[in-house]
Amino acid sequence: MAGKGTMDYRSAGVDLDRGEREKRGLSALLSATKDANTLSELGLFGGLYAVPDSVSEPVLVSSADGVGTKLKVAFRSRRYGTVGQDLVNHCVNDILVQGARPLFFLDYLAVGHVEEGVVGEVVSGVALACRENRCALLGGETAQMPDFYGEDEFDLAGFIVGIVPRAGILDGSRVRAGDRLVAVASNGLHTNGYSLARRIVFERAGLSTDDPVEALDRPVGDVLLDVHRSYLNSFLPLVEEGLVSGLAHITGGGIPGNLPRSLPEGLGARVSVDSWTVPGVFRWLQDLGEVEEPEMRRVFNMGVGMIAVVPPDRVRDVLRHLSDAGEDAWELGSVAEGEGVEFV
Amino acid sequence: MAGKGTMDYRSAGVDLDRGEREKRGLSALLSATKDANTLSELGLFGGLYAVPDSVSEPVLVSSADGVGTKLKVAFRSRRYGTVGQDLVNHCVNDILVQGARPLFFLDYLAVGHVEEGVVGEVVSGVALACRENRCALLGGETAQMPDFYGEDEFDLAGFIVGIVPRAGILDGSRVRAGDRLVAVASNGLHTNGYSLARRIVFERAGLSTDDPVEALDRPVGDVLLDVHRSYLNSFLPLVEEGLVSGLAHITGGGIPGNLPRSLPEGLGARVSVDSWTVPGVFRWLQDLGEVEEPEMRRVFNMGVGMIAVVPPDRVRDVLRHLSDAGEDAWELGSVAEGEGVEFV
Repeated sequence: MAGKGTMDYRSAGVDLDRGEREKRGLSALLSATKDANTLSELGLFGGLYAVPDSVSEPVLVSSADGVGTKLKVAFRSRRYGTVGQDLVNHCVNDILVQGARPLFFLDYLAVGHVEEGVVGEVVSGVALACRENRCALLGGETAQMPDFYGEDEFDLAGFIVGIVPRAGILDGSRVRAGDRLVAVASNGLHTNGYSLARRIVFERAGLSTDDPVEALDRPVGDVLLDVHRSYLNSFLPLVEEGLVSGLAHITGGGIPGNLPRSLPEGLGARVSVDSWTVPGVFRWLQDLGEVEEPEMRRVFNMGVGMIAVVPPDRVRDVLRHLSDAGEDAWELGSVAEGEGVEFV
Repeated sequence: MAGKGTMDYRSAGVDLDRGEREKRGLSALLSATKDANTLSELGLFGGLYAVPDSVSEPVLVSSADGVGTKLKVAFRSRRYGTVGQDLVNHCVNDILVQGARPLFFLDYLAVGHVEEGVVGEVVSGVALACRENRCALLGGETAQMPDFYGEDEFDLAGFIVGIVPRAGILDGSRVRAGDRLVAVASNGLHTNGYSLARRIVFERAGLSTDDPVEALDRPVGDVLLDVHRSYLNSFLPLVEEGLVSGLAHITGGGIPGNLPRSLPEGLGARVSVDSWTVPGVFRWLQDLGEVEEPEMRRVFNMGVGMIAVVPPDRVRDVLRHLSDAGEDAWELGSVAEGEGVEFV
């Protein structure tokens, strides 16, 4: 029970002055991501972005996502600078697979009681990744939500808008039976499977973020906070040159949950399990948690960050381009009559 | 500590099958909001929306927002259908004040353990309001976040993209000293001030959602869950005809926090406190919480949902139009040299 006397917003856990202070700090972060089409500053009600007139029959591609419970690893490690990068890169990949390049991004950050500075650290990560992906950070909302989130905890979601010429949309219609699947490596869990990974690592194995992962010779916190990669720079040239027929971003649901979304009705995928070595981080989690292989494949990306569907006569060009771009890429399998994903 | 034996995602609190089931249910809700420019179905990675070719020099206006702790009132009342409407209407108003009409919306819904059906109820509210505002519900993310949210609790955020011809942007540049302020009534707290309101009502006064508010002759839950109004239909014709020079949506920060954002440097506002009667819901909260008047004005909308800046010779037309549209509208004050808001 609140006692007697005058009540105000601050005593109810919401500090409007601090909100204003933080907003001024964020304004500089946003400014650094502006491009020629960005027409607004933070402080207006909505962000303004001119539709580029260089795109014929422009189609907007939009996606919303969160960081999921990877946030809990960041909280444990008290490292708040990378989750914003995870979020932006995830969203960039999600619209890239439809052929789009990013225009702008907005974030939603809901905090309970956080130390001053945490909000700035989170949004700095968002802004950094926006710059890396040539995407304007157009605005966002920082909501003070006392009673929703624990001490120094928060939720973070993001929204991206990109653009693609109508003729360049990747919607599965160009995919044919016999097309090849080209995989590009992930660099860890990206942002999926953390509810299971945390149970395994922190509850069952009782590890802390500073403990070493022997097999990987790195601390647990580092391994679990590796930043979800953006594949924009590697794939956009291939997409714009029409060298890929489809793209799949391997997120929650793994290869079986995501690859079919890039294929048309009546076609499925054969994935050769011998074509790559599943990275150590997944085997470490699997061993600790005694997780069955099918469950592993359904929850984690297993080392595959993106899969491109490529006509057979383009595979060499695509592999060479990806290799030149610094990617670890390989032929993963093929498209065949049927449905779903068969691991062979 | 998790025990021995095989671990899987479901035991870690994430049910992928249920997620898929719910996604299929949401697909129908989204379909009902489609318009001719909506090119995608749920299930693709990103939503597709063609830029309308009817707008000259099109500028996208975008905003992100949440429902804030009004959600906690919905949880107490076990009424999940209206918060989605609050969210959409809030976002629609936020871009309307820059002259934009909505194109599409995406939601982010983060849930812990909720009863099956709650997700559908929440998204139904989002979809309903999207239809009312002629806005496509293009997609969204439903994140299962065990350990983040309490039983039957969740967070909900939204993201809107609208469009305005470049020449129609409301950015304060048309506002002149001597312009009049025309207010339109809110229908309650909308979505702001709930952290304070909840402390007053549930903690200090010890009321429950079923208790009556004597002065208003309605139950507490009804009063606090009144749906945040959309002003799109009332104001868009005025905006498109160029009858208003600026618009302010009165949200967190109240009139002093929002009205100045629609005014250019060097101009402030005089608000006549005698021009309207503050609705009973605010006086009820103020009395229960012994809240000072300036704090009330800084936290709540005090009965003012939107404020239009109108050239003096257009005030009669604007008031007549708003009245014809069914709004309770009145002349609230004027724009003057200076800064900020002076209550006179």
